[in-house]
Amino acid sequence: MSFFRSNIEQMGGYVPGEQPQGDKFIKLNTNENPYSCSPKVKAAIGHMIQRGLQKYPDPLATAFRIRAGEVLGCDPDWILCGNGSDDLLTIATRAFVEPGDRVRFANPSYVLYRTLAEIQGGQCDVVSYQPDWSLGPAFTAGDARLKLAYLANPNSPSGTALAPQQVAEIADALPCPLVVDEAYVDFADNHCISLVAENEKVLVTRSLSKSYALAGLRFGFLVGQPHMIEQLSKIKDSYNCDALSIAGATAAMDDQAWLTQNQATIRATRQRLFAQMQELGFASVASQANFIWNPHPTIAVEPLYHKLKESGVLVRYMNYPNWEDGLRISVGTDEQIDACITLLRAAM
Amino acid sequence: MSFFRSNIEQMGGYVPGEQPQGDKFIKLNTNENPYSCSPKVKAAIGHMIQRGLQKYPDPLATAFRIRAGEVLGCDPDWILCGNGSDDLLTIATRAFVEPGDRVRFANPSYVLYRTLAEIQGGQCDVVSYQPDWSLGPAFTAGDARLKLAYLANPNSPSGTALAPQQVAEIADALPCPLVVDEAYVDFADNHCISLVAENEKVLVTRSLSKSYALAGLRFGFLVGQPHMIEQLSKIKDSYNCDALSIAGATAAMDDQAWLTQNQATIRATRQRLFAQMQELGFASVASQANFIWNPHPTIAVEPLYHKLKESGVLVRYMNYPNWEDGLRISVGTDEQIDACITLLRAAM
Repeated sequence: MSFFRSNIEQMGGYVPGEQPQGDKFIKLNTNENPYSCSPKVKAAIGHMIQRGLQKYPDPLATAFRIRAGEVLGCDPDWILCGNGSDDLLTIATRAFVEPGDRVRFANPSYVLYRTLAEIQGGQCDVVSYQPDWSLGPAFTAGDARLKLAYLANPNSPSGTALAPQQVAEIADALPCPLVVDEAYVDFADNHCISLVAENEKVLVTRSLSKSYALAGLRFGFLVGQPHMIEQLSKIKDSYNCDALSIAGATAAMDDQAWLTQNQATIRATRQRLFAQMQELGFASVASQANFIWNPHPTIAVEPLYHKLKESGVLVRYMNYPNWEDGLRISVGTDEQIDACITLLRAAM
Repeated sequence: MSFFRSNIEQMGGYVPGEQPQGDKFIKLNTNENPYSCSPKVKAAIGHMIQRGLQKYPDPLATAFRIRAGEVLGCDPDWILCGNGSDDLLTIATRAFVEPGDRVRFANPSYVLYRTLAEIQGGQCDVVSYQPDWSLGPAFTAGDARLKLAYLANPNSPSGTALAPQQVAEIADALPCPLVVDEAYVDFADNHCISLVAENEKVLVTRSLSKSYALAGLRFGFLVGQPHMIEQLSKIKDSYNCDALSIAGATAAMDDQAWLTQNQATIRATRQRLFAQMQELGFASVASQANFIWNPHPTIAVEPLYHKLKESGVLVRYMNYPNWEDGLRISVGTDEQIDACITLLRAAM
């Protein structure tokens, strides 16, 4: 006899990218930042440890919300903090989706959206990207059972981004809230924060994992209109962000100079990686994120993934149904990218 | 127009105990440990900071599960880690409860159980404790729609605990899984871990917040049979525990000598607090936890809460429907308890 809900038993569960612990691999597979975070983050966490950890953290992470509001140009009550942006995607899904409701997202995109919908008992309405990574009218088609749409922007694995005006039009046309997942936006030219004030349906999620080099800390936030934040807050665990991550995230947001410098470095290496992958014949896609999507028009790429792994370089091999397969390579340091390219060249 | 599920809009949301930041108050209101955690925990976190936070943490917190398994006498695959035990209570609720299903818990108990059931769209079947804080046959009554039961053991606010044999009988009689919430069990004489191997329906949750003085770190775990853990794992966020909390929690579990000494200190102060509250005429309940429940047979206690707060001492005033009200006072240091007692004596 099983006690579990049938949708839980039937689902496969989300499989995250490989996370070997230790330093055995050059990790270019889960879009981590190759550099260490701002020293101010480490200092802030160290200070909090010395203050002690026996007390509960601030349930609303007020210090972070004040500082992030200053950076983004919004009041703190437009911000909800989470244990990574996955926590906020989970909260939004639980807020809007009943069993049997429809959830819409694009393919190929972040695989977690399907998992979150399935846990909730929702049905997935998957809209294929067009060959140029734009979204056609199917993404905004009317549907009375549609309760939530997710849009990764920039998208993974493509690294492409829709312009804010396009996102605004999508949000206007949709009958339901639109989560604009901006996990990678700090590496892009534009963002959609300004759309939130224009349309209550727009909820923007951000992560400190990539651009602030804090994947290990688990901190993200959501920007929405205050009446939306108020309802979403009911769903979060009371103390979903710990004292160390609140301290570290606040210090990270406070050090925008570090971010600016890191962005420039990652973008420069991204350009080098892009040029070299093109030289190797990959049909690489110009990226607004800290990774590049690399299908190949003639060569099978899955064996390349295995050869790289044997030599100590982890990239992500992805094969999307009704689409194509390819290697998604995170933008590491110049040295890491050179090592990857050298191995690829030898393997091809 | 609202986009939210109607049960979300209708619910009030869980209100945690007051968490004033800074050191303005003597906090005896949310059952925090008054002592600083093991120095080995601080060292382990400090070491992890220096290693860097740019990489994702181990999704399964393997290091912790190995160490905790050694302490508890079970294999690591019997353990699921969470972002505080609230995360695990949330996961269990999402695993078993569909909208319209019934969830059973006792009253008075941890108020979060109702919130979790309501978020999921479940219906609450609340069974009153008997005057001696035992549970009658209503708690195990058959009900085809009953999908989950929670039992806080030791219970809050009473601090009382059912014997493991009683819990075993409840689990056997119930038609659904029973979450035995052992957040306070390290201050008690017995625990229910051994029941897990005997009955797949028993899921024991633990927290490092109280007994390891790590409320600020957010780390808890659940012990269940491996096939139960496997299904529950599908629901957790991939990286629900951050790298610092995994490192700190593992070091905490590794320092059982610290725990043993802290337990002895808290129990001794608990005995002093109990005796002094009885002297003041409270009908205090003998406690197996790190707090004491104090109703008063003749005096209104809510004004006492306010007077204490005005003088810088926070305790928890609780008023349960169809029950009684009282002051729940956490076991602080001897000095904190003396300050509280002195103020109470003056106010009565």
